[in-house]
Amino acid sequence: MSEVNLMNQNRIPIYEALEKFLKNDPISFHVPGHKNGMLLKNEYPDLSRFLTYDVTELSGLDDLHSPDGPILEAQKLLSDYYGTRRSYFLVNGSTVGNLIMILSAFNAGDKVLVQRNCHKSIMNALVLAKVIPIFIEPRIDENMFVPEGVRKSIIKAAYNQYADVKGLVVTHPNYYGMTSYLEDIINIVHQHKGVVLVDEAHGPHFHLGEPFPKSAIDLGADMVVHSAHKMLPAMTMGSYLHINSNAISISKVEYYYSVLQSSSPSYPIMATLDIARHFIANFNEEDINYTLSQRNSFVTSLCKLEGVEVVNRNMKQDPLKLIVRYKGYSGYMLQRMLEEENIYIEMADPYQVVFILPLLKKNMVYSYSDALIKIKRVFEKYKPKSNSLKGIVVESDDKISSLSLLYEEMEDRSIEWVPFRYAENRIAAKMIIPYPPGIPTILPGEVITEEKIRLIKKYIEMHAKFQGETSRLLNGEIAVYI
Amino acid sequence: MSEVNLMNQNRIPIYEALEKFLKNDPISFHVPGHKNGMLLKNEYPDLSRFLTYDVTELSGLDDLHSPDGPILEAQKLLSDYYGTRRSYFLVNGSTVGNLIMILSAFNAGDKVLVQRNCHKSIMNALVLAKVIPIFIEPRIDENMFVPEGVRKSIIKAAYNQYADVKGLVVTHPNYYGMTSYLEDIINIVHQHKGVVLVDEAHGPHFHLGEPFPKSAIDLGADMVVHSAHKMLPAMTMGSYLHINSNAISISKVEYYYSVLQSSSPSYPIMATLDIARHFIANFNEEDINYTLSQRNSFVTSLCKLEGVEVVNRNMKQDPLKLIVRYKGYSGYMLQRMLEEENIYIEMADPYQVVFILPLLKKNMVYSYSDALIKIKRVFEKYKPKSNSLKGIVVESDDKISSLSLLYEEMEDRSIEWVPFRYAENRIAAKMIIPYPPGIPTILPGEVITEEKIRLIKKYIEMHAKFQGETSRLLNGEIAVYI
Repeated sequence: MSEVNLMNQNRIPIYEALEKFLKNDPISFHVPGHKNGMLLKNEYPDLSRFLTYDVTELSGLDDLHSPDGPILEAQKLLSDYYGTRRSYFLVNGSTVGNLIMILSAFNAGDKVLVQRNCHKSIMNALVLAKVIPIFIEPRIDENMFVPEGVRKSIIKAAYNQYADVKGLVVTHPNYYGMTSYLEDIINIVHQHKGVVLVDEAHGPHFHLGEPFPKSAIDLGADMVVHSAHKMLPAMTMGSYLHINSNAISISKVEYYYSVLQSSSPSYPIMATLDIARHFIANFNEEDINYTLSQRNSFVTSLCKLEGVEVVNRNMKQDPLKLIVRYKGYSGYMLQRMLEEENIYIEMADPYQVVFILPLLKKNMVYSYSDALIKIKRVFEKYKPKSNSLKGIVVESDDKISSLSLLYEEMEDRSIEWVPFRYAENRIAAKMIIPYPPGIPTILPGEVITEEKIRLIKKYIEMHAKFQGETSRLLNGEIAVYI
Repeated sequence: MSEVNLMNQNRIPIYEALEKFLKNDPISFHVPGHKNGMLLKNEYPDLSRFLTYDVTELSGLDDLHSPDGPILEAQKLLSDYYGTRRSYFLVNGSTVGNLIMILSAFNAGDKVLVQRNCHKSIMNALVLAKVIPIFIEPRIDENMFVPEGVRKSIIKAAYNQYADVKGLVVTHPNYYGMTSYLEDIINIVHQHKGVVLVDEAHGPHFHLGEPFPKSAIDLGADMVVHSAHKMLPAMTMGSYLHINSNAISISKVEYYYSVLQSSSPSYPIMATLDIARHFIANFNEEDINYTLSQRNSFVTSLCKLEGVEVVNRNMKQDPLKLIVRYKGYSGYMLQRMLEEENIYIEMADPYQVVFILPLLKKNMVYSYSDALIKIKRVFEKYKPKSNSLKGIVVESDDKISSLSLLYEEMEDRSIEWVPFRYAENRIAAKMIIPYPPGIPTILPGEVITEEKIRLIKKYIEMHAKFQGETSRLLNGEIAVYI
């Protein structure tokens, strides 16, 4: 590959290689078993047409686990666009990206600052890596009733309280598109010679610049994970992993990369990761303006509807994440009402729902008008109510907490299930995660407070979904260590 | 779900739920970013049509990580077909299946018997689990020049040599479709109260019975992994994990299952896993006969061609794996010759290539005739040669070996690259894996013998592909511990 075509963001190397490969009507005596979709052709025509793209590591199609052709070029184009030291395609989602980041950046026994409201894949990674987490619990945004970003002051406080902290793991933006003080806290951690790992699952488009919040990559984070399937048009499970500093060991990253991902990665996912990079790298000023004008007129129409509130925040917010409330209804109720008209939103919490809006180019067939017609129908059917909701009371101050047990110690402890009323002051043995947004309310090794029990009861009342052994939780039981 | 429809193998719950969901033209304000494929509609029509199936955990579509709807039903149907205690869909390939099996069945420090020529994902799992592996190196099949299955005698020998062995990990069948003494060795390990974990990636169709080899599930293995994408018509990365005995802790399995797989699993992969189960569960006697008759006439036509040999083995062999040689040509050469006519086979080794043939139903559009025409063209262009190939000399006796370092010890050692001639008697620091079939020639922690160096050189001579830091290997360097 010449440097020239490496820098040509109009190339789509993996997709091009697939198209070239398929043009010759290849005959398959190899895996996958559907034989270029032929075995499903009669019964599943749509599926089978697509399955021609579902090939394997054949000559000319490269190998994700030792790339030297189109996959290597596609990853170099990705790195070139974001301006990173090294960038990789992930086929097992940002979940595996978070595992790789934490396992490769830290060793067993390292003290690591971790934003308390991270995605559970980060919590799982901490256990696998056997680090000693110090949790930073951000204060609650008064408008949104959700945790905002981690502040400078609390990071400083944590460094005063704990010696030899090796780094920080944060989520940016949060599930609601909110960003905050990342630049400040990156500087503090770097002053202490630590590394900053950022789960930027919802921010792969931030590198576009204004009006979007600043990208963790541009703010100098050491490693960053992007869900290319969340805000870019990649297939689900397609993500990016970026190494953005010399403080990271490439060989450790590549070791866990090869261990934790399928040895036969999906070509459809890799091709759409390539397409997603091509999409965003060629997304120009005009496209940004078109996206925003479409988004703004949609918001204007929504706000005209009686009882509808689109929450505005003063802090830096992704304009493509819309936080919508409807007077007198919980977010969960609003979600169900919208679904009656086949409108599906990203998530609901007790107060609001989150709409995720698309990045649009003029030539696309996409329009908001159908959605608006159906949304109006919903709000004609369900009129706004005067009574406003009673809020969930949550602690609203910055807080630093650690676990009462080491992960090694938890391994040896046995577990019992106890009713809520007996759980107070016991040590939790399992995560409790209302989903979405998939942020743990209780973590294994944490002391269960009366406060947390109240919060969980409230979520249950409000019909939040939980992951894990839901049935026992809904029966009012919590798993604790004996 | 009533028990009745649970047992109805004509149902395809996930696929049906998707079809039902899509019928209502749902409007997406959620991930993935392609918005039901709409954003790619103009530029990638085929892709985008399919991407309507690429949805997320929406109401009615269940959640793989806490299933209570169509995904639960689909997994119960899977378990019902194979007659297992519990069966699961995997979206990160058999790689994650092997990781889950080993991490959940063994603890750090456990002694585990491991077939020497396992897939590298098993070797990676041993490191993550920090077990103490005892490698069983099977003898070489005289016909095939490849390792055959593990024998009863060597398992007995291993039990005599090592106390408190916790279990056995084997591959069945091997990459060539060969099976061997699994029933015997399962019995021995069970007599010693151990568990048997089987990587049956290439055998999900064995449960059909004759003329296929016996399935590890039917032979009583405790846990089994199936690549539904290899021999069944699932999408790549779609696999099955089966718990087949009470010796396995379901909660440990489900813990690693949730940790190691994407929290937003791919619906296209899950749907094709459901379709693949439906396909095999409804594959009847007539289909088997049709598949075999088609296969046999293809083989007959191949054998008529001068210089072509389809290797027949006396041992139990999957008839859908065809081992083909061409007089005077290495497998690698034969592979390249076939690819000139756009015929792609599964793998090549120095002696032969492997064709994977499909499971066929009469109503399918599949035919071998095009392939035969092109294959004949290849052999008219390249005439057979009289000179036969010089064989790779490999030890051909059963052998038991262990590592010279614990995995923990390796973590602390630093690494240097040395030329082949200085590598002898040093301890290897990296796997060396000719690919396919992805079986390590050298494992980290093993002493590098003159024998192994000769083998690697031979593979390089014969243009085998290697995974990992290929360039240094091809420059004649090996990584060793200092």
